[in-house]
Amino acid sequence: MDELEKIINEFRDERDWRQFHNEKDLAISISLEASELLELFQWKSSEETVQTKRSEIEDELADVFIYSIMLYSNLNLNIEEIILNKLKKNNEKYPIGKSKGNKQKYTEL
Amino acid sequence: MDELEKIINEFRDERDWRQFHNEKDLAISISLEASELLELFQWKSSEETVQTKRSEIEDELADVFIYSIMLYSNLNLNIEEIILNKLKKNNEKYPIGKSKGNKQKYTEL
Amino acid sequence: MDELEKIINEFRDERDWRQFHNEKDLAISISLEASELLELFQWKSSEETVQTKRSEIEDELADVFIYSIMLYSNLNLNIEEIILNKLKKNNEKYPIGKSKGNKQKYTEL
Amino acid sequence: MDELEKIINEFRDERDWRQFHNEKDLAISISLEASELLELFQWKSSEETVQTKRSEIEDELADVFIYSIMLYSNLNLNIEEIILNKLKKNNEKYPIGKSKGNKQKYTEL
Repeated sequence: MDELEKIINEFRDERDWRQFHNEKDLAISISLEASELLELFQWKSSEETVQTKRSEIEDELADVFIYSIMLYSNLNLNIEEIILNKLKKNNEKYPIGKSKGNKQKYTEL
Repeated sequence: MDELEKIINEFRDERDWRQFHNEKDLAISISLEASELLELFQWKSSEETVQTKRSEIEDELADVFIYSIMLYSNLNLNIEEIILNKLKKNNEKYPIGKSKGNKQKYTEL
Repeated sequence: MDELEKIINEFRDERDWRQFHNEKDLAISISLEASELLELFQWKSSEETVQTKRSEIEDELADVFIYSIMLYSNLNLNIEEIILNKLKKNNEKYPIGKSKGNKQKYTEL
Repeated sequence: MDELEKIINEFRDERDWRQFHNEKDLAISISLEASELLELFQWKSSEETVQTKRSEIEDELADVFIYSIMLYSNLNLNIEEIILNKLKKNNEKYPIGKSKGNKQKYTEL
């Protein structure tokens, strides 16, 4: 991830783009790229899209990662740490005993 | 990333959740988590949110990563590879000469 | 719609909220409410949600309308007119002959 | 609104599209169109977009309405009624006394 972060920052610095990359617009951008990914599944079953749109999924998912990496880089976050932290919280919200094989939200468990 | 992927997959396998994790609903989930991240910036300036909501940003961004990692894990994608591939394409769409200091979309360059 | 617009504007003026309602944040808000609507369908089939979450669908869809009405009201748009205009454009993009019973995007027709 | 609903339903029935229009994919579509609207504001101030992208805003906002009308038509909802209902609930969550000139969420009031 550190290597990817470095490459992505080089990409935007070569273009002098950090001046535009405030965190609010980065959050908008992550949401827009997530929508482009989701659009591949519009009116289709999961299988249908996975079988016919693999390279498009790769591109759109990559864009979600690129903007997400830019955002944590802007904020100097340690991404491994915040993911492990969040998994710990999810572990408390969704204890194995209650949530095994159960897709309910924790508010409905 | 490989280590994170392993931990995340353990998390869902302990709960027997992979049966629900079809790719269409994972794409929906990435989009929903991106919206929860964006919600932190609603009616606020970038600075205002960054200064007052740092731990919330960490949690919501972590959720975007967690679902994004689940999706590429489902599809056996090599995430480093697809990000580098996409940066190469972006490099062609946004050549440094044309896009330096310019926030226009490539369709408007 | 004119009556609804009037009621919605009274609601925000009583709270002195127009000062916050710039169009960028209204567009963010429409997107966030659309996500809350979509969340009702996460991990579920269409039927499952329609049968068990009807009143939640009503509330979230209402929120999409409320912010959408605020946005066109801010811009003094004639909503009937812009919808009819857009349907005309869609009619050209999706001629009946080509698109009948066909869910492909116009770029793939 | 009744007249618009009728015209929109004619549009989809001429194309035999209702078979694809399950409510989950309509909710996805509303979210995608809301993102296309939001994209017009990406990297820009509210004023900048309002001044330079007025006809694009009209088109994307129209699409949000078109899919939202399809969804309530599918479910036989009375849209005026659900909007008035939701405003009543919002009125309780945001009493004028507490929320006047205040952009905080009701959970933070």
